[in-house]
Amino acid sequence: MLWPIVAIVVSALAFGVAAYFYQWVKRLPTADDGKNGLNRIGQLIRQGAFTFLKREYRTLVVFCGVVAVVIFLVYPAPLWQGQGAGENVVMAVSYLFGSALSALAGYIGISVATLANTRSASAARQGLAPAYMAGFRGGAVMGMAVVASSLLGAAVLYLATGDSEAVMAFSFGASSLALFAKAGGGIFTKTADIAADLTGKVELGIPEDDPRNPAVIADNVGDNVGDVAGMGADLFDSNVASTAAALVVAVALGLVEMIFCFGALGLLASIVGVLVARVGEKGDPGRALNSGTYLTCALFAALTLAASLACGYSLRIWGAAVLGMAAGVVIGITSDFFVGDDKKPVKRVAEACQNGPAFTILSGFSYGLLSCLPSMAGIGVAALGAYKLCEPLGGNYPMFGIGMAAVGMLSVVGMIISNDAYGPIVDNARGVAEMCGLGDDVLEITDKLDAAGNTSKAITKGFAIGAAGLTVIALLGAFRETVIQAGGTVSFNLMDPLVFFGALIGAAIPAVFSAMLILGVDKNSQRMVKEIHRQFDTIPGLREGREGVTPQYDKCIDIATVGAIRQLIPAGLMAILVTLAVGFIGGVEAVGGYLMGNIVTGLLLAMLMSNAGGLWDNAKKYIESGHFGGKGSPAHKAAVIGDTVGDPFKDTAGPSINTQITVVSLVSSLSAALFVASSLF
Amino acid sequence: MLWPIVAIVVSALAFGVAAYFYQWVKRLPTADDGKNGLNRIGQLIRQGAFTFLKREYRTLVVFCGVVAVVIFLVYPAPLWQGQGAGENVVMAVSYLFGSALSALAGYIGISVATLANTRSASAARQGLAPAYMAGFRGGAVMGMAVVASSLLGAAVLYLATGDSEAVMAFSFGASSLALFAKAGGGIFTKTADIAADLTGKVELGIPEDDPRNPAVIADNVGDNVGDVAGMGADLFDSNVASTAAALVVAVALGLVEMIFCFGALGLLASIVGVLVARVGEKGDPGRALNSGTYLTCALFAALTLAASLACGYSLRIWGAAVLGMAAGVVIGITSDFFVGDDKKPVKRVAEACQNGPAFTILSGFSYGLLSCLPSMAGIGVAALGAYKLCEPLGGNYPMFGIGMAAVGMLSVVGMIISNDAYGPIVDNARGVAEMCGLGDDVLEITDKLDAAGNTSKAITKGFAIGAAGLTVIALLGAFRETVIQAGGTVSFNLMDPLVFFGALIGAAIPAVFSAMLILGVDKNSQRMVKEIHRQFDTIPGLREGREGVTPQYDKCIDIATVGAIRQLIPAGLMAILVTLAVGFIGGVEAVGGYLMGNIVTGLLLAMLMSNAGGLWDNAKKYIESGHFGGKGSPAHKAAVIGDTVGDPFKDTAGPSINTQITVVSLVSSLSAALFVASSLF
Repeated sequence: MLWPIVAIVVSALAFGVAAYFYQWVKRLPTADDGKNGLNRIGQLIRQGAFTFLKREYRTLVVFCGVVAVVIFLVYPAPLWQGQGAGENVVMAVSYLFGSALSALAGYIGISVATLANTRSASAARQGLAPAYMAGFRGGAVMGMAVVASSLLGAAVLYLATGDSEAVMAFSFGASSLALFAKAGGGIFTKTADIAADLTGKVELGIPEDDPRNPAVIADNVGDNVGDVAGMGADLFDSNVASTAAALVVAVALGLVEMIFCFGALGLLASIVGVLVARVGEKGDPGRALNSGTYLTCALFAALTLAASLACGYSLRIWGAAVLGMAAGVVIGITSDFFVGDDKKPVKRVAEACQNGPAFTILSGFSYGLLSCLPSMAGIGVAALGAYKLCEPLGGNYPMFGIGMAAVGMLSVVGMIISNDAYGPIVDNARGVAEMCGLGDDVLEITDKLDAAGNTSKAITKGFAIGAAGLTVIALLGAFRETVIQAGGTVSFNLMDPLVFFGALIGAAIPAVFSAMLILGVDKNSQRMVKEIHRQFDTIPGLREGREGVTPQYDKCIDIATVGAIRQLIPAGLMAILVTLAVGFIGGVEAVGGYLMGNIVTGLLLAMLMSNAGGLWDNAKKYIESGHFGGKGSPAHKAAVIGDTVGDPFKDTAGPSINTQITVVSLVSSLSAALFVASSLF
Repeated sequence: MLWPIVAIVVSALAFGVAAYFYQWVKRLPTADDGKNGLNRIGQLIRQGAFTFLKREYRTLVVFCGVVAVVIFLVYPAPLWQGQGAGENVVMAVSYLFGSALSALAGYIGISVATLANTRSASAARQGLAPAYMAGFRGGAVMGMAVVASSLLGAAVLYLATGDSEAVMAFSFGASSLALFAKAGGGIFTKTADIAADLTGKVELGIPEDDPRNPAVIADNVGDNVGDVAGMGADLFDSNVASTAAALVVAVALGLVEMIFCFGALGLLASIVGVLVARVGEKGDPGRALNSGTYLTCALFAALTLAASLACGYSLRIWGAAVLGMAAGVVIGITSDFFVGDDKKPVKRVAEACQNGPAFTILSGFSYGLLSCLPSMAGIGVAALGAYKLCEPLGGNYPMFGIGMAAVGMLSVVGMIISNDAYGPIVDNARGVAEMCGLGDDVLEITDKLDAAGNTSKAITKGFAIGAAGLTVIALLGAFRETVIQAGGTVSFNLMDPLVFFGALIGAAIPAVFSAMLILGVDKNSQRMVKEIHRQFDTIPGLREGREGVTPQYDKCIDIATVGAIRQLIPAGLMAILVTLAVGFIGGVEAVGGYLMGNIVTGLLLAMLMSNAGGLWDNAKKYIESGHFGGKGSPAHKAAVIGDTVGDPFKDTAGPSINTQITVVSLVSSLSAALFVASSLF
């Protein structure tokens, strides 16, 4: 049990680094001069984010509690079958443990991000390098916390129970929390964004981020809860799920140690990458972020090679892990091509904006569709390659190879999350700098940082989708393994009409799920618009901006939160319930097809929406930077419409699909024995 | 060989009915009074359509010739393997026969539609019933011609060769022609539509359908070539493919006769339905169209029940066919719900238009996503039900059951095409009535007819997609059968990474295919805009509308045609070449997964685009009828943007995906033996 213990030690080290960065960020001075209100604005955003988290977690405690009771009652075997309650308790506790750790990671991330935003804005007065460091180290706190807690949780749990099913339940806990954190945060942020724009910019003609607008703080909060907490929960979830999937197969092969070995070394490589990443005063922050990632990848490959040689692990498995990592990089580069504002697609879409918004939508949507092929091929090649590499080892090794490819892809996730959380922090910093009038020099620097953040965000999204894709393929293997252990026969033959039936239903679920989220944003923002009208009508002096009159920001935050959770629960539940229905009707064959259909259309829609959304956003920015008429031109108006369509695509529905496919895969694996025991067909 | 002969006789009967209707329509008087220019406008549209067909067919002769040579060289076995050229000649000739018949059906359809439009407009002076009859009987010519020629072709070919593979090649010929007719027609019509609007309405401020606009005839021609010829080719293709798929399985079971029996009786039922359908002077044309379809369905069920009892066919197989037919009706009703302008989705989207175009897009897209589930579930239930119904018969019967479900769904296709072709005819009639100033009474009647046409068009599209879905599932069975006959082993196991790899690639193809078509429309319309500018700049008096000065309509038609074919060939070829690449790399397992992935995302995207597009169109019409501010309001402007986005969705990409999945399935079946003989993995 050497490597699980090493994993715990490295996790502790990562927590140490996170704590160090946290204190480092917290001690940075802010540029509040008593007049510009910087601290007050920072405080409002911070309070708002915590208001959201408190409200969300209160609801989630109830939800997770109910699910834990259900798990206790029926998993791994129904209590009334009289096989004792011991294992059921372990499952339920593991589930709660997973949810709690995921929630904690989100809490830490929000906590630092809402300090780092004002610090980064303030540091920008001293130049690019200090501002970059404030943003990046703020993001790195989240990156370290997420990976450390997921690795620590899995290692502790496995050491305590020795049961891969418990890790599966742990993963399900993380996933169900991620489902809410990601989609909930996504609905929250877009609700506030749209409502603030509609009432502020369109109706009242007050500028963006005007403090009179009751939704303005909710809007700023949204950036944090959507991108920091949401994406963190998503990658926490993928990270744990890949470990769990590999574990299920590894137990029989006696290779459990290897998983923790690779996980620990990946985290170690990320720690080094995070500590080393910095930018010179004249340097390019985007390049700094990327070179940090490449360094982490190279380190991971070298360290795991050494460890494999030392521990006598087959180099074929090592190759599979490295292949997975390489696929992640390729997918990131693809996303960058389709979304980057110096590449052809963004320029073409910006050009199309001149012909009106319909062309903005059509061209952006088309490029989004095109972007699916390379990423899906990348996932396919990685899975196939990993399998074929490990095929000569025989037995279950090929499936284990796919699992390790997913573990490899996620090995550098600490670095990836750091890059991603950097994005919303410097985005917020830019907003704070503008609201508090820190001057043009500061804005120029924060603009530069923000642009680098946009690109890294696009890469992260592609990476997150790829990781989810490879992970769910590994989970499909875990599902099969569980079915076999439950005494079921497995022939997921495409020609079996049950498989086909399942595939058709599974394929439609990500579509329905996305539609429910997008319609949720729609409904919710209309509710918030009403509240904003109410405040303007009943609070005297608010509309005119009388000194000392502030709107009730909390009300809007509460509406966004309550609405987000209310709209989300049906979508998440729908996915889970349909999965169970398919399983109890069609049995494991139908579920096999269902997962397959769900994965392929899920990946397709996730990629399409994330990339099209990012593309529209950057096309708008490209025009704003002076092309095709610049700000205020007809092309710009068309681009703004594209961007608004893209907002819930890229920040609500698209990236939530990852979590949907992972949750569905985990539900299937956990319920496999039940499906074998009782299904209609 | 009784039933193939009966099929030929019934086909001849259907041709007779078609010829009778053709003459009937042709003899109807037109309302040309020497001043309103009705005959001239009708003539221009007719000439334009034939210009397109001539140009398209000239290109297709080359394409099909090349493919025929390739088929001769390598199918069913490469010539250089020295197994003789006999079978190869049969395959190549069958292929050409299929393309030729499909082209002929398109020619007949265009030929009558461009007569019926002016006749229907003219008949509207006498009232609703005569106008309806002119439109419907015009459409019925196409309906009869398509089904009769496909049934006749398959029967003749099977009688002549006794080889199901030859029918497969025949089907491939029909499909590859449909691929061009459908997508080519779709690109043509939207190119002209968009270019005419951009230059006419937006730039010059001249009204829609103004004869000064060089693109105006191309625009009107487009409606015919897209909806009449395109949809006809698509359903011709599905019809033949379902027959071919069932045949491959039927040969071993000795049930070839049954396929022709059901096909012949379905056509007979359609003939009766077409002859009976009529509307009273106060009646609802939509109801007349629907009740005709229901009558056809009931007749088909009764006739085939009687035939099954008389010939001793298992009633389980009959049940499978009826189940397929019922699924088709359910899918049609679903499409009607999501697209119909008296239903909730259209009203909600129209309401969302008040908040701006971004909400139009988001809500319409969401409903489009939602619309996928019931249709895909319908296809899944039909396939599963047919399989389970025939499972007790053992052996290959369950797969044959799925094939017969597809045959059953397509049995009423004669009636369906008649309803569909009715749509563009009365749409054209409305345009002609307006251009020639036939008066408000006439417009009121043509409006009524047009509204009924829109609903029936939506139902037809849903039906066409469903039919393609069930057909390709049957083709998957045919593929497996061919692989087994070629001595290959078949285990399309989802856990096989080759299958999974194939599925991921296959899933991305419909996305890339659609993107290429949509970008094609975009590029092409910009080319036509340039030509329109050239004509306005160089033809003296055109801009001012001087008496006797007419634009060079042919130039625009030529640009639309050449551009459509130029843009289409890459998309169609891409789909075919990727299929071959996957087969030669990953072998039959990869192709199995590829087909599966292709089918599920193909159906999803087809349904999404067709329904979202139809929804936007009808939301616009709903607003134009006076809701939410009516014509010219901000809501209307937003709705127009939605409609423009929806145009290539519903008329170019969406319905072309049907053909793409069919072509890919046929290519796979035809090449199965080659894949078995030589693949990398």
